[in-house]
Parts: sequence; C-alpha cells; structure tokens
Amino acid sequence: MTTIKDSVHDHIEVEGVAADLLDTPPVQRLRRITQLGTVSLVYPSANHTRFEHSLGVYHLADRALDHLDIGGKRAERVRAAAVLHDVGHSPFSHNVEGVVERHTGKRHDDVDGLLAEGRVARVLDDHDLDPANIASLVAGDGELAQLVAGELDVDRMDYLVRDAHHTGVPYGTIDHERLLRALTFIDGELVLDEGNVQTAESLLLARALMNPTVYSHHVARISKSMLRRATERLLDTTEMTAEQLRRMDDHELSVALRSHDETAETGTRLAERDLFKRAVWAEMGDVDDDVVGADHDAVREFERDIAADAGVEPEHVVLDVRGEPSMRESTTGVLVGGEVRRLDEQSTLVNALQVAQREQWRLGVYAPADGVESVGKATERVLGLETEGALVTEVNTPGRYASLDDF
Amino acid sequence: MTTIKDSVHDHIEVEGVAADLLDTPPVQRLRRITQLGTVSLVYPSANHTRFEHSLGVYHLADRALDHLDIGGKRAERVRAAAVLHDVGHSPFSHNVEGVVERHTGKRHDDVDGLLAEGRVARVLDDHDLDPANIASLVAGDGELAQLVAGELDVDRMDYLVRDAHHTGVPYGTIDHERLLRALTFIDGELVLDEGNVQTAESLLLARALMNPTVYSHHVARISKSMLRRATERLLDTTEMTAEQLRRMDDHELSVALRSHDETAETGTRLAERDLFKRAVWAEMGDVDDDVVGADHDAVREFERDIAADAGVEPEHVVLDVRGEPSMRESTTGVLVGGEVRRLDEQSTLVNALQVAQREQWRLGVYAPADGVESVGKATERVLGLETEGALVTEVNTPGRYASLDDF
Amino acid sequence: MTTIKDSVHDHIEVEGVAADLLDTPPVQRLRRITQLGTVSLVYPSANHTRFEHSLGVYHLADRALDHLDIGGKRAERVRAAAVLHDVGHSPFSHNVEGVVERHTGKRHDDVDGLLAEGRVARVLDDHDLDPANIASLVAGDGELAQLVAGELDVDRMDYLVRDAHHTGVPYGTIDHERLLRALTFIDGELVLDEGNVQTAESLLLARALMNPTVYSHHVARISKSMLRRATERLLDTTEMTAEQLRRMDDHELSVALRSHDETAETGTRLAERDLFKRAVWAEMGDVDDDVVGADHDAVREFERDIAADAGVEPEHVVLDVRGEPSMRESTTGVLVGGEVRRLDEQSTLVNALQVAQREQWRLGVYAPADGVESVGKATERVLGLETEGALVTEVNTPGRYASLDDF
Amino acid sequence: MTTIKDSVHDHIEVEGVAADLLDTPPVQRLRRITQLGTVSLVYPSANHTRFEHSLGVYHLADRALDHLDIGGKRAERVRAAAVLHDVGHSPFSHNVEGVVERHTGKRHDDVDGLLAEGRVARVLDDHDLDPANIASLVAGDGELAQLVAGELDVDRMDYLVRDAHHTGVPYGTIDHERLLRALTFIDGELVLDEGNVQTAESLLLARALMNPTVYSHHVARISKSMLRRATERLLDTTEMTAEQLRRMDDHELSVALRSHDETAETGTRLAERDLFKRAVWAEMGDVDDDVVGADHDAVREFERDIAADAGVEPEHVVLDVRGEPSMRESTTGVLVGGEVRRLDEQSTLVNALQVAQREQWRLGVYAPADGVESVGKATERVLGLETEGALVTEVNTPGRYASLDDF
Repeated sequence: MTTIKDSVHDHIEVEGVAADLLDTPPVQRLRRITQLGTVSLVYPSANHTRFEHSLGVYHLADRALDHLDIGGKRAERVRAAAVLHDVGHSPFSHNVEGVVERHTGKRHDDVDGLLAEGRVARVLDDHDLDPANIASLVAGDGELAQLVAGELDVDRMDYLVRDAHHTGVPYGTIDHERLLRALTFIDGELVLDEGNVQTAESLLLARALMNPTVYSHHVARISKSMLRRATERLLDTTEMTAEQLRRMDDHELSVALRSHDETAETGTRLAERDLFKRAVWAEMGDVDDDVVGADHDAVREFERDIAADAGVEPEHVVLDVRGEPSMRESTTGVLVGGEVRRLDEQSTLVNALQVAQREQWRLGVYAPADGVESVGKATERVLGLETEGALVTEVNTPGRYASLDDF
Repeated sequence: MTTIKDSVHDHIEVEGVAADLLDTPPVQRLRRITQLGTVSLVYPSANHTRFEHSLGVYHLADRALDHLDIGGKRAERVRAAAVLHDVGHSPFSHNVEGVVERHTGKRHDDVDGLLAEGRVARVLDDHDLDPANIASLVAGDGELAQLVAGELDVDRMDYLVRDAHHTGVPYGTIDHERLLRALTFIDGELVLDEGNVQTAESLLLARALMNPTVYSHHVARISKSMLRRATERLLDTTEMTAEQLRRMDDHELSVALRSHDETAETGTRLAERDLFKRAVWAEMGDVDDDVVGADHDAVREFERDIAADAGVEPEHVVLDVRGEPSMRESTTGVLVGGEVRRLDEQSTLVNALQVAQREQWRLGVYAPADGVESVGKATERVLGLETEGALVTEVNTPGRYASLDDF
Repeated sequence: MTTIKDSVHDHIEVEGVAADLLDTPPVQRLRRITQLGTVSLVYPSANHTRFEHSLGVYHLADRALDHLDIGGKRAERVRAAAVLHDVGHSPFSHNVEGVVERHTGKRHDDVDGLLAEGRVARVLDDHDLDPANIASLVAGDGELAQLVAGELDVDRMDYLVRDAHHTGVPYGTIDHERLLRALTFIDGELVLDEGNVQTAESLLLARALMNPTVYSHHVARISKSMLRRATERLLDTTEMTAEQLRRMDDHELSVALRSHDETAETGTRLAERDLFKRAVWAEMGDVDDDVVGADHDAVREFERDIAADAGVEPEHVVLDVRGEPSMRESTTGVLVGGEVRRLDEQSTLVNALQVAQREQWRLGVYAPADGVESVGKATERVLGLETEGALVTEVNTPGRYASLDDF
Repeated sequence: MTTIKDSVHDHIEVEGVAADLLDTPPVQRLRRITQLGTVSLVYPSANHTRFEHSLGVYHLADRALDHLDIGGKRAERVRAAAVLHDVGHSPFSHNVEGVVERHTGKRHDDVDGLLAEGRVARVLDDHDLDPANIASLVAGDGELAQLVAGELDVDRMDYLVRDAHHTGVPYGTIDHERLLRALTFIDGELVLDEGNVQTAESLLLARALMNPTVYSHHVARISKSMLRRATERLLDTTEMTAEQLRRMDDHELSVALRSHDETAETGTRLAERDLFKRAVWAEMGDVDDDVVGADHDAVREFERDIAADAGVEPEHVVLDVRGEPSMRESTTGVLVGGEVRRLDEQSTLVNALQVAQREQWRLGVYAPADGVESVGKATERVLGLETEGALVTEVNTPGRYASLDDF
C-alpha cells in the first residue's frame, strides 16, 4: 500500500488497481493539466491539477464504498473509474473541451478509446477488469456510476473543497464527510438518507456561490474565450489534429500557442496577462433569441460583422455566448419520511437558486482595451442590443484580480 | 499595546480604551459566559466564550474603522462599544435572556446601568468617554452603531466564523475580510459597496445554514428550554432576584441549579446530558393561532393542561413556542448601479431564504424519555393538533449528538 | 452508531462500550473540566474541555487499533480506557492535582475506585469488561496500555493538536496521522516503524515548543500557583474533603473559592484576572539545593519567612518550585535498520531538547503588584539568591496576555 | 488599489510600484515557474508558483515595514524588491539553477540585467526608482535588504508556510505574524526583539523538519538530479544558450526536454514519473574526501567510470554530491537582556540542529530500476565505499510518494 500526502485530505492510501493506474502515462499526464485552467489569472494560487483532484476523487469514492459496504470487484471497478475519470480532459480542462468536442465528437468523459490501449489497458487486464466497463462508469452508465458521475458524486465533493482550498474563497467549504456518510442506494438510485435535505442544499449553495465568484468570474471567461479562439486557429492554421490536441498537456499547448505566428499574439497575451476587456456584458434576457441560440458558425459570423462595423481586426472581437445555466444537482434524490423526493420538488431554496442563476446569465463581448468603446457600439448595432448607454451592465469590477465580482 | 493570540483572528492588537476595558470585572466575567450555551451538548467542542468573541468583535471593528478611514474620538467610542457590546448578557447567553427580560424589562443590549458604575465607568471617564453614549451605540442608536449593532455588523461576522471554528460545522465560514473591505457609508447608512450583492447573500446563506444545524438544533432547543424553566423556578422558589441572576456567570448558575432542591433534577439532567426528548415536533403551519401566539402565562397553562391530561408531573412537560423567524440581515443595503437597494428587494435568493426559514419553523413539546408517548398524545388532544399519527414530523435524527439534523 | 462532530477531527464515530460510557456522569463531568485550566488567562480562546479531548483520544485509539489490526475484546478494553482515561482529573486538571494527591495519595490516573462503582461499573459490566482491568490500562500497566498511557500515546497526539487549535499557537501542529500509521508492536513494545526517527523528533519538538509558550507560560504558572494555594486553604478552613474536591468540576470550585471568606480574595483575583506578578524569576542553576529540593512544608515555611521579612501578609507570597523537567517521550522506541533504538540514544536533537529544557527551568516568587519589590528583596535575603540586581532574569514580557514569552 | 485573494494570506492589497510591477512580463512569467520544482513528484499537491510566493513576500514585507514604521521611498524600494526578488529564477527554480550558474556565472539573485531593461525598467522609472538599487536589495546588499534577503527575511517566512499549505506537511507552520512583530533594527542589523529566542528557534526547527521531509526528500533529489543532467545535455547538444535557458519557464523546458532526441528519454521519464532509483545512499562521513569535494567535471568522470564498471550507458548513472549543509538562519541576531546575540551562540537547540543536519548528509547514486544492483556494486569499487553490503543505508522508504522518509 502506498500512502500519499494531499493538501486537502491529508493521507490518502492507495492500493490495488488504483495504485497501478496512478503510474500510467495517461494518469501522470494529469499532473500537467490544471484543474481550473485560466482561473489562475484571477486567483493566483489556483494552480492545482487534475492529478491531485483524481487522487481526491479516488479517496472519497473509496470511503463512500466503505460506508455503503460495497466491496470486491464492483468496488475495484469504481475505484478504477475514480482514478481514470478525468483522463479524457483536454489541456486546460474545460477551457478547450468545446473545441475538441466539435472536431472529434468526443466529450471529456468519452474515454473508451483511451482505456482500451497501452499501459492503462494492461493494468486493467492485470486486475481482470474490462476497459469498456470502466469507460461506461466514467461516462455515467450504470448504478455505481452515480458515485463518480452523478448529481451527487464524489467528483464535485472533491472539487468544491479543493477549489476553495486553493483559491482562498471559502464558499466551497462543504461538509463532505457528512455527505459521504449520508449516501445510500434506494431501488438502484443513489440518494441522501433521511434528515439530509439541508445537507443537499448546502452542496448546491456552495456550487451556486462558487460559480460567479470563481468558475465564471468574468476574467476567467474572457481568458477562456481567448484561449479557445487561439486553439481553434491552431487547428485551422497548422497540421495539428484535434485528436493530437486532445492528448496534449497544458505545457505543450501553452508553448504551441506562443510558437506559432497565427496564435503568438494571444499566446503571449495569456502568458503575460494582457487580456481583452469587456466591451459588452449584457443580461441574457435583453438579448435577441437568434443571438442566444447562435451556433458556432453563427457566433463567428457575428464576430466578423462586429469587427467590420467597428473597424478592427476580426481576431480582436470575441463574442462569448453560453448556454442557459442549469443545475444538474437539483434533481438529487433525498429521502424524506421514507420516500425519495427530488430536491427541486422539496426545496424552496433550490428553486430560488435556479432562478438566481438564470438572472446572472450574461453575454460578453471582449476586445483589446483600446477597442472596447468602438466594439461595444458596433455590437449594439449588429446585435440590436438596447443598452441605454451602459454596455457593461455592472460597474462593479473592484480590481484587476479582484475576487468576488458579481457575475 | 497588548497583543493577544486568538484562535480565529490570530494576533489581535489592543490599545487605548479597549485595553483598559478588557481588565474590568464586567468584561472579565464574559470569560465565564459561553457563547452558545447549551449548544455544546450537541457540539462538544463549542465551548468558546463571550470574552474571546468580544475581542474578535473589537478586532473587526478596528479594521472596519481603518478601512472606512474613521479615527479619533468617534473611533474610540466604537471600539469601546465593541468590547462592551455583550456585557449585558445573562449566564448561558441567549438561553436565559428571556427570563431576565420578563422580570427586569432589560434586554442584553440594555447596558446603560452597567456602564455607568464601577470600574467600567472609571475607565470610560479616564478616556473622556460618556457611558450613556457608549450604551446607546451598544443598543444600536446612531450612525456608527450600525458597525457593531446593525444588520451587517462585525458582531455577526465574528460569531459566524468563530462558531464554525469551534463546532466544526463549515457553513459559517464566510469571507469576512471581503465584507469588511466592502463596507461603506452612504447618506448615513452603512451599506456594501458596488459588486457585493453576492457577498451579502453569502452572509445570509451562512446564517441560514447555521441556524438549523447549530443555533436551533433540536437538542439545543430542548436543553435551552429545560434551562429556562429551571431558571424560572429558581427565581420563584429562592430569594434570588432577576437582577442578581443577570449578573451571574455560567459557573454560578450551573452550581445554583444543582444546589437547590427545586431545580436539582433539571440541573443534574443538564450536567449529565440526560435530556428530555421530543414528544411533539410540529410544523407551525399546522398549529392553531392561539398556540402560536400564546404568551408566557398561556404557555405555562398549556403545559399544565397537557401534564394533567397525560398524568405526569407538570415540570415534566415543556412546551417550546418560538416567534416567527425573521432575517434582520435581509434589509441590508447594497449599492447597485450607484443606488442603495435593500437586499430583499434585489435578491431572489434572500427571498427564498425567508420562505425556507418559515417552512422550518417548528413547535416542540419535550418530556422525559418514558413520558414521550403519553405527553405526545395528550398534546394532540389539548392543542388540537392533527398529526396523522406522526407527532414528530421527522424521523431523521441520526444520533445523539448528531450534527446536521434537519430543523 | 453515533457520529459526533469535533472541531479537530471532524466526524468521530462512536459505538459499543465507548458510546455507552460517554453518557455516564463521570464522563459528562469532563465537559466542565477545562483541558488547560488557567492557561485561558493567557490564551483567551483556550476553553476546550477534557470531554472533547477524551473523544479525540478515543478516536485516535480506535484508528490506531485499526492500523495495528487489533480487534475484539482487547480493542474494546483500549477504547473504554481511552474514553475513561481522564475521569480521575480534579477540577482545573493538573492545576489542582498536586493538592489532591498530597491529601488522598491518588494521582489522576488512579481510577480504580471510580470505575468500580455506579453507572460506569454497570456499563462496563454490560459489555463484559472488568473495571480493574480498564483501570490498569489507564494507569499504564500492560502492553496495550502503551497506546493510551505510554511515551508515544494517542493522548499526547490529541492534546498537542487540540491545544494548538484552541490557543492559536501553531507549534503543536504535528502530523498525527503519520504517527498513527507508524505505530507498531515489537516484542510487546510499542515503537515507531522504520524511517520514522524524524516523525518521533517532530513530536518532541512540538512538545518542547508548546511547553514554555503555552503550558508553562509564566502567567499560567502564576495563576496556577494562586489557584493551588487557595484550594489548599479551602481544605484547611472548611469541611470539604480532598475526595470531595477531587470530584468537583471547574464550575463548583470556581464558585466555592469565591464564596468562602478565606479564599474569596484569590477567587475574585482569578475571576477578574487581577493576578500576582513575578517578584523573582530565577534560573534554577542559581538556586540553592535545599530550595530546589524543598518539599511542601518547606516551601510553606520559606513563604512565611519571605512574607515576614518583606512585611506583607503570608498569603501574599507564593513560592513556585518545580521538579526538574524531564521528557518522558525521549525514551520512545524507534526501529532503525531492524533494531529498536531509544530515541535519546539515536537523536542529536532529542538530547539537545533535554539540555534546552533544563536551561529553561525557573523558580518563581509571586506577589501582588505593589509588593513585588519588597518581596523580591526579601526573597534574595531568605533564599540566599545572588541576583545582581535583576530579580526577574528576563525583561522580555511583551504584554499582559502575550503569547510567546521565553520561559 | 488592487486586492488579490491568496490561499495563504487571504486578501493581499497591492498598490504603487508593486501593482505596476505585477503586470510586467518577467513577473507574470513566475506564474509558470513552480516553487518546488520536482517536489510535486513526491507531494502531488505542491504545484504552487513563484508568482503567488512573490505576492506573499510582498505582503509580508509590506506588513513588516508597517511594524517597523518605515515609509516613503525607502519602503517603496523594499516593496519593489519583494515583488522582483525571484525574477532571476530559472525554470523549475533551484533545480536548474546550478546549470545556469556554471554557464553564465549568474545566481538567481543576480538580477541587475533583468531590471535594467524592458517593462520592468520603465515601471521603476515611472516610480522614480533606480533599477541598480533594487537589484542590490535583491542581492542582499544594504540594511533594508535584510528584510527580503537576510537570515530572517520574509522570503522564508512565506515559503515555509506556503510549502506546508500546499504539500500538506504541517512542519512549516510557523507563527509568522509573531516573527513580523518581533523584527527590529539595532545598529543597522535586523534582529528579533527581547523575549524571542524561542520564536527564532521555532523558525529554524521548521526549516530543519521541512528539509528532509520536503526539500531534500530522496525522490525530489533523484528527479532534480535527472532534470539537471538532461538540461546540461540540452545545452550541449542544441543551440540553446544558458541565457536563453535562464529565461524559459517550466512549460518551455518541459516541452523542450521531451522534444529533443538527446533528452527525450529523461524528459519522458520525468513526465511519466518513471524515475531512477537509489543504487547507493551513503552517509557522507563514510565517503572519501576527493568524492565529497569533487567539482562538476570530477563528478562527471566518476559517473563515467561507474557506468563503465557496471556495463551500463553513461547517462544511466547519476552521482549526486551535495555541499555540506549549513543553516544560514543560525546567525540570526536576537536581543537578550539588551544585547544582540547570535542565535547559535545562545541556543542549545540551534547547535544541535547543525549537528543533526550534518548527520543527515547523504551521497546518492541513482540508476534505472534494473541497473540498481550493478551500479551499486560498481560504485562501491569506483568510489572505494565500504558499505558492508548495505548500499542504501536505510531500508525505510515507506512507499512511492511517501511523505516522511528519513533523509
């Protein structure tokens, strides 16, 4: 047995298939994939990696299995899935995922191919486990998959606590030990035991507070959008394939962006934190449906139109449209008086969170500092926004790296 | 200057009037008043005192004054009020406050008399401060009073963080440093600066989660109710006056209860954690208005009727009716787009919190373990409750000291 | 199974004999015995109790048993001993222990009588455990006793971490999880496994740093000495017996001291933190052997002589002589290259700690502030001290509650 | 003013020259230089960067200046030096420093050239500061340089606490707030005020415990040695210059090593944590003087001889000889009885630390797992080591990533 020291869970004990998987190249690669991508441009100490997170997920999965009294091969499968659940991530995690997915059709949890080959396949085989089986757990199929890829999974328990530890933002500090102990299976569904409506609410509140403060902080959104555009350009202008991109690590992508002429400007801007600014930051309720629903090509087209109207280079306009926010955790099951109820049917607070989240939904248009004004006005014209003179709807940006801007 | 080490704020530097006040008997007495009273019967490590809390409030007040650029005599007054803001507390803090108030008409923040005499008066006089002035700050009068006795005051910033530290419940872990930095005065009103709607929400959410989990945990409510009844009996059956009671400390009251025949049973039960159990735990919405609105005498009368009906001794029935929950913090002002808005007008979440809190409102009837069944049924009859057989509406009490029961 | 939330170890799961013992009066009494006695007069937030500490010791013992793969009745005995290991403590823990021991001959770990009667005896009987057997584990007899009452026991692991958490002094923050995992039995001796010389050193260093900073801070020593003298007076001047004193709690002793004429002055001084000051603080190396070795009666006699010489009341002089400091942990066994070695034979650092500790050894004479000068000079004459004009050998007392004075 | 959230110091307020310097490319580059280099191969969560550390050093410097009552231009210089103190670091911090130094003659604190050009020079000029002046502070020249580059500087206060936070090893948890408050200048020397012998000792003990556990953990030493050799090869076999190497970041060096044929094996081994093992781990006292004192070329020659003797490729033998350990902090000045004394003259413990450190001094020879035996024996012959059959003097390596091996 190996004991690994972790800044969040202290000592983590690893053995069996998990210990062997840790030493495989696809898992070691996660040491070079940061958990929060460009969020470190807002929170300088948020440099934790998918590797330590995967260890944490393994640790919590192991403890949950113990509490649920699940052992043997079924448990080994879950532990393997926990260690491997993030090996499908692209560099900079979610930041580049959309690009990869559009070109390859593969999401980060589509790991069939990755597990079926090389060292990982050999390790699984040594432990008499079927790669396809583990891949489907990672993808969320099957009863036990709920533990590592469900609404209530140990994945989010680990990342909330870990992201809080490393950003310094206390909102993610959930009582994960209580959650673990409350997990139970009812008719094949993983739910929280009696007396835990509030435990479940606290998890959703933590997510709801971390979202605008950390995950969707406007500076994180700006830099993520810049990174995406540059990565697309990399695929368009070099011989790199999306499959290759998918297997790179942060180090390689960071160097590649800075090395190629077509992406060097953005690569250097990201490296030197010389970011675009918000030209427009509009409530989604004020935006036309054809913009809200624009697909990738339509967004590109809007960008070109705005750039033309403003008289700036096309790559100096980034239009950032996000899908409607949803809270997957709100369908979490909770036992109340002996019956399983969905949290959003039971909890006033959870319903309010869903409304609040929709209210915080924003469309962003970003440009270099000296182009903000002209791009802002051009956006008004091109997208038909009525902004009453306030392109950025909030004046509340306390500072460059400031931590808690309203969303 | 004196530096004091604190488990929450690390080093606290004290000087001027604050340093001198710390050495006065009324402030030193706070060392023997626990912050959370009987909550330590649920959370064994919650033994922190009003003294360390008062130091923390002084510390945060001092920092807030610094950020607000308020100095001189006005600042000294606030610092004095911060140190003194809890000297009016009865033993076991809020647990006994109701008893004292009914007999003396004085709430814990009515400290006029206490500051005008003895060592405290002399210290204030040495620093050329007027006791009446400080007392009115403690009572919440005047612009600067908002800092120590308002909706957004440093009092609750300290207690949320401190109670989280000492109970082990993470929900109170707010970002108090961010809150301090966001405080600003607009037209004499203390509000949060632009970009802080969410900062304010996070404070309310922390309170909303700590409430059922800690402050109103049913075991804390049971033991608090028992303590109150016993204290009333002490006043009724001995020569002790309510004014004397008010100036006792936890040690003295704990010994007094165990020493007098009339209160020895309850005193010993509390000392040995041999508590009453819930015979009824009903949603307030199901309770008749005359019970909801019952005053002290009416509650006593209901208790006697229930005891008679159940055939148990009168002191073995405790009816625990609480006023409708309110969230004072929900009227907090926040700057949004240059205008001050009330949080409950601005925030979907805060409105939901108010609804949720009302849903958690419960009436309790407590009795010794062997009387729970008969007292439960008697309550049904006497109060006209229709419980459909479930006197305690939740079956969700995970354990004796368990930490996170739904409310 | 009951889960209890703890500020240090988070969730503690209790079952079996331990769960039943928690509810007995002698264990519940520990809620009213503070862990550090008068140390809270230096560190205001150090109000934790023997009850939460006992829970912590149970928790660590349970984990150690698990790592050592010890189960069944042997393990239940250790768990029972862990919960009960402090029931023999007098009020204010070690502060009053000397007084009790002189009158009753019983140390705090002499719990034979306490376990053989009442509720504790019944619980042990229910679980088919022999009280005498558990008492001998508490007293340190037998192989498994090393876990709860040895050089390396879980008792000190818990208190170092807990005292650090509650005082705010970081020095006690040891890696207790590492220590637990390193424990192993070799030929009936509990030692640390290979590769842990430094793990053991770190425990001793933590103790060595906490000692002068916390446990023997001069203000803690002064107040402890005052408390002892007053308690002796209580026994001398009232009908209270030492056996009764031993079973009191902090609340009762605090009230008793303030209630009796003979002890009211000291009781009030302690309650109001109006403490004696150091008249003399001398290196033990400079003190005559007959003072160093003085027994209780001789110390009393010296005090009377000093008081007479100084012309002050006898109870206004306190002579504080302590035995030579020793480090029991220095004989800890550690596996090095397959052989068990004693830490003090193996470690340069541990030897240095023993020397350093002896250098910090001090004799104190305390008196009310206005008597410090005359008492200091009288002490010089009576004890034959040559102080070269510096009765207090260090000028380094940064402040009233200051945290880190040299010893 | 900008407020930045930090995981260690919470909110850090930055203004003036410091705020402007943060945005310069040489400082932003520090986001891509990890603080502990290959230590993350032992402690997976140790991914913090020189950027966040530099912010921390700035923060502590600013607070120290405040306590010392130093303001104006002198303070601005120190703050600038604090932000810039690490811009001279090579990729992977100290790991590659030796290589750079041998080729360029420049240590990491030789930043004259870096500050005199580009954006940094312009910012300093804007604030009317002289680059040469700041560079000499970074290099440790001048009275105020003691704050950022002395025995007692805020640099080590930050890194000890930060490294503890991110590795999870508690030993670095010093009381930095106490240290800051104790700093004082006596005759131009920065020393600790009266009553702080133990405060100083605690800093040295923290360093002494962190050293073998973290900084010189054998796995960190192995991977560091491998990284060095590969970097040397990179300079030898490509057109890259040492000056270019010095200005790279971790990302660039990590990619470069994997991209070049001559270094690809080691680059991949490091990326996949497929490290060499210890063939020899010998106490330095047992090693011949000509080995202990071997310079770079002599070490290379020994390696070749060992490889030839063992019949393995030359790059599969790494000889790791380190200079004699020293503790610079041991000359720290402390005020005792009004006089400044050197800590190593005053403290028994500090002397012991120096001895202990020498005892832990080890020579390592590393090779791929399958070459360990033959390389070990060859080393015996070539270096004339008498190992009595135990090439690795300790058997105490608890596990792959294990945290606390003896040194």
